[in-house]
Amino acid sequence: MNEEFLNYLNDTFGITFKNTSYLKEAFTHSSYVNEHRELKLRDNERIEFLGDAVLELTVSRYLFERYPNQPEGKLTRLRAAIVCEASLSQFAKEYGFDQQIRLGKGEERMNGRKRPAMLCDLFESFIGALYLDQGLEKVVDFLEQTIYPRIASGAFSHVMDPKTNLQEFLQQKGEVAIQYLLVEEAGPAHQKEFLVEVMAEGKKLGEGKGKTKKAAEQVAAANALEQLQQL
Amino acid sequence: MNEEFLNYLNDTFGITFKNTSYLKEAFTHSSYVNEHRELKLRDNERIEFLGDAVLELTVSRYLFERYPNQPEGKLTRLRAAIVCEASLSQFAKEYGFDQQIRLGKGEERMNGRKRPAMLCDLFESFIGALYLDQGLEKVVDFLEQTIYPRIASGAFSHVMDPKTNLQEFLQQKGEVAIQYLLVEEAGPAHQKEFLVEVMAEGKKLGEGKGKTKKAAEQVAAANALEQLQQL
Repeated sequence: MNEEFLNYLNDTFGITFKNTSYLKEAFTHSSYVNEHRELKLRDNERIEFLGDAVLELTVSRYLFERYPNQPEGKLTRLRAAIVCEASLSQFAKEYGFDQQIRLGKGEERMNGRKRPAMLCDLFESFIGALYLDQGLEKVVDFLEQTIYPRIASGAFSHVMDPKTNLQEFLQQKGEVAIQYLLVEEAGPAHQKEFLVEVMAEGKKLGEGKGKTKKAAEQVAAANALEQLQQL
Repeated sequence: MNEEFLNYLNDTFGITFKNTSYLKEAFTHSSYVNEHRELKLRDNERIEFLGDAVLELTVSRYLFERYPNQPEGKLTRLRAAIVCEASLSQFAKEYGFDQQIRLGKGEERMNGRKRPAMLCDLFESFIGALYLDQGLEKVVDFLEQTIYPRIASGAFSHVMDPKTNLQEFLQQKGEVAIQYLLVEEAGPAHQKEFLVEVMAEGKKLGEGKGKTKKAAEQVAAANALEQLQQL
C-alpha cells in the first residue's frame, strides 16, 4: 500500500495495520484482477462480504443503545439509511479511499472510480480488512470517529419520521393536502396488519403495511418519498 | 424465566446468564405484550433486530474462514440458506425455544407457536440476548455447538451448486433436458454482465444475472428451484 495513505490512517484515525495484506485485497477491484491475471491477485469481494456484516452489527448495536425507546421498525429504517450506497460512498470519498483503489484501465475509463456502488463496496471492504487485522473493537473505534457522530448529529433522522418529511417535501411547491387512507385491515384483533395508501391531489403517491395504522402510514410516506425522489 | 430451561441452557450449552432480563425480553412475543398492557412489558423485536445482525456476522466470519477459496457469490448464497426462516425455525424447535415463548392467547389459538416466522425471530432474539448478556465470543461458542457443525457436515451445501440440484429435482419425474440460454450480454469486456434463462421442455423456469456465464447459470438455476418448490 501507498505509504502516505498508511500514514494518513494512522494520523487521522489512530489505525496501524499489523499486516497490510487484507488492506491490499480490500483496495483491489475485480476489474484490476481481470486485467492482471498473471499476478493471481484476489479482488475485494470476499472481504466486502465480511465487512458488510461487520458494519451491520456495529451500526445495529450503536442504534440499539442510543435509542433505547425506539421500536424495531424505526431502528431498521435508520440502519438502512446509514448502511446504504449514498452514505457509504460519501464516506469513501471523504476519506480518500477512492484515490487508493486499484482499478482496471477499462473501468477507469468508464469513470468507475466515481461509481457510488463501487465506493460503497470499497468502504465495506475497508471495514472488513480492519476487522480481520485489528478486531471488532478497532472497527467500533473507527466508527466512533466517523459514522457515529454523524448519526448522533441527526444526519439520518429524517428517515425516522417519513410523514413529516413527505409533508415538507410536498410543501416546497406550495400548500398540499396529504391524506392517509386505510385500504385494508387483516388478521385477528391482537395481530392485525394494516395497509395504508397516501394520496395528494387525488393521486396515490405510495402505500405501506404495518402492525398499527400509524406504522403503516410511516411506511407509506417513506414509499411515497422514495418514488417522488426518483422523478 | 423457567428454572428448568435455564438449567437446560447451562447443562447443554454451558450458558449461564448473568442477568435474565434480556432473555425474558427475547422470549416475549408482541401478542403477549398487547394482551397484558398493564404489565408494560417489552416484546422481543428490538432484541431480534440486534440478534439478526449478530448472526449475520458470526456466520459470515465462519464461512469466510472455512471456505478460503470460494468466491463471494457462493458465500452469500450459503449465508442466505443458513440465516433463513426454515433453518432457524428448525433450530428453535430443536432446542425447545418454542415451549418457552410467552404468546398471547389469540396467537396461541391461531397456532402461532408453530409459525416458522415466529420461531425464526425467536432464534434471532435468543442470539441477541446471549450477545447482550455474554458478548460475541459466547455467541460463537453457542454456534460452534449448534449451527457450525451443521454447516461443516454439508447440510447447506446444496445451495452452492444449484445447477446440480435443479437437475436432481427435475429428474425425479424422469429424464428432462435442461437448457441454459444466454439472453443478454452487457457492459464492457472487462466488466460484463450476463443474463441467462433456464428452460426445460420449452418452458422458462427461471433467470439469473452474473459476472460470468457460469455464475448467471447458477443464479438462474437457484431462481428456478425457488419457483418450482413453491408450486
